[in-house]
Amino acid sequence: MPKPRRPDTIFWVEPAAVKGGRLTLDREESHHLLHVHRAGPGTAFVAVDGVGGTYECLLESSDRGVAVGTVARRLSGQGELSVPITLLVGLPDAGPAETVVVHAVPLGALTIDFVASGRAGRPALGPARLSRLSRIAVSAMKQSRRSRLPAIRSSASLDAALALLGDGPRFLADPGSPSRFKSTPEELQGSISLAVGPPGGFTNEEAGTLRGAGFQSIALGNSRLATDTAALTFLAIVRNHLR
Amino acid sequence: MPKPRRPDTIFWVEPAAVKGGRLTLDREESHHLLHVHRAGPGTAFVAVDGVGGTYECLLESSDRGVAVGTVARRLSGQGELSVPITLLVGLPDAGPAETVVVHAVPLGALTIDFVASGRAGRPALGPARLSRLSRIAVSAMKQSRRSRLPAIRSSASLDAALALLGDGPRFLADPGSPSRFKSTPEELQGSISLAVGPPGGFTNEEAGTLRGAGFQSIALGNSRLATDTAALTFLAIVRNHLR
Repeated sequence: MPKPRRPDTIFWVEPAAVKGGRLTLDREESHHLLHVHRAGPGTAFVAVDGVGGTYECLLESSDRGVAVGTVARRLSGQGELSVPITLLVGLPDAGPAETVVVHAVPLGALTIDFVASGRAGRPALGPARLSRLSRIAVSAMKQSRRSRLPAIRSSASLDAALALLGDGPRFLADPGSPSRFKSTPEELQGSISLAVGPPGGFTNEEAGTLRGAGFQSIALGNSRLATDTAALTFLAIVRNHLR
Repeated sequence: MPKPRRPDTIFWVEPAAVKGGRLTLDREESHHLLHVHRAGPGTAFVAVDGVGGTYECLLESSDRGVAVGTVARRLSGQGELSVPITLLVGLPDAGPAETVVVHAVPLGALTIDFVASGRAGRPALGPARLSRLSRIAVSAMKQSRRSRLPAIRSSASLDAALALLGDGPRFLADPGSPSRFKSTPEELQGSISLAVGPPGGFTNEEAGTLRGAGFQSIALGNSRLATDTAALTFLAIVRNHLR
């Protein structure tokens, strides 16, 4: 029988399950490797730990359905941007929120905060919705071969969201702005924050709060973009300007 | 009773239905204006004809459910990019194809061609699927306040798709390329073409054909992007470099 090919999929491993040159996949990921991909002893596979580690492994054992791999090589920060980016998104409907996660994770966002801003007209996301979005994020991380699992959160107010941001350049998608995004890689150091309004946009007061917190207004173009389209467009543009 | 506010929606009008300072909405759009938005004589509304015209109108009559407007002002090319962009997308599944249309239309693509390339593993889209995608395009055009309706087509081969392209700069999303997109507005004249592979990518032969047809390879970043994400990212980056 031919040796199975290395699965094109990446597997998820808890950071605590990597010890002394060996890692152990959980039951779900083991099942996927052993049964869906029919891996046998010696099959090569790749796992990521969600905190920056990528492990090139060889399957060592599969006793009682638990896959244990020998780590042949450990890489750090694979598939990650050179600078962390936080995306603040005024809370949209469920569909567009999932669209943001599905595409913003492959595009490298490290944090996505769905902010319950004024015109969103709804409270912050609860644990069930956040858990669903986090599962989508795990899947998107694996498919895009990133090594860090982005944090998905939902702040109850713009002030609460701002309190969690790191220091670094801050930009606000503002259809009324005369400025396009033109920053150089040298200017894009620290922790980058991008803000996109909910359907209907941020209120004037919220836009004022953001500008007061150092957000520079940027126009994304001359057509009207929905919240999800604007969030992905902004991220795509900014990541193309990083080193 | 207060006069109804101008609807925030844009209405669609057939180019042939605009005559001598007056336009006539079709039955569906008339219903929307008269009944959903409860417009009465004198209500201001905006219509686009899909070939570049935007009309600021006042409702003149609504006999037998047909809305006729007086054109107060005609604008040309509203919400359009300065240069036409054609997006060649290796045919993905139905869901990602719709995602491309939903977001690429607001981002300004003038033509989207879902090409039945080698690894797509399926024939070109038939009339029913194209018709569905075109309806999505009309809705996206109105929501984004564009004035041109993008053409949605599905070429049976890469050669067939290339034969339809205009002259101008051509770029291929290629994960293996060392080059980021850096063209200046001066370089981006004529008709721009962007090519993105199907799930699994273009075959080596197809990539060779594209390079032979003048496509320059561009890397979109260091994570792996799905076909739909790559198409939107590419378009978002390029449009940000236009004048």
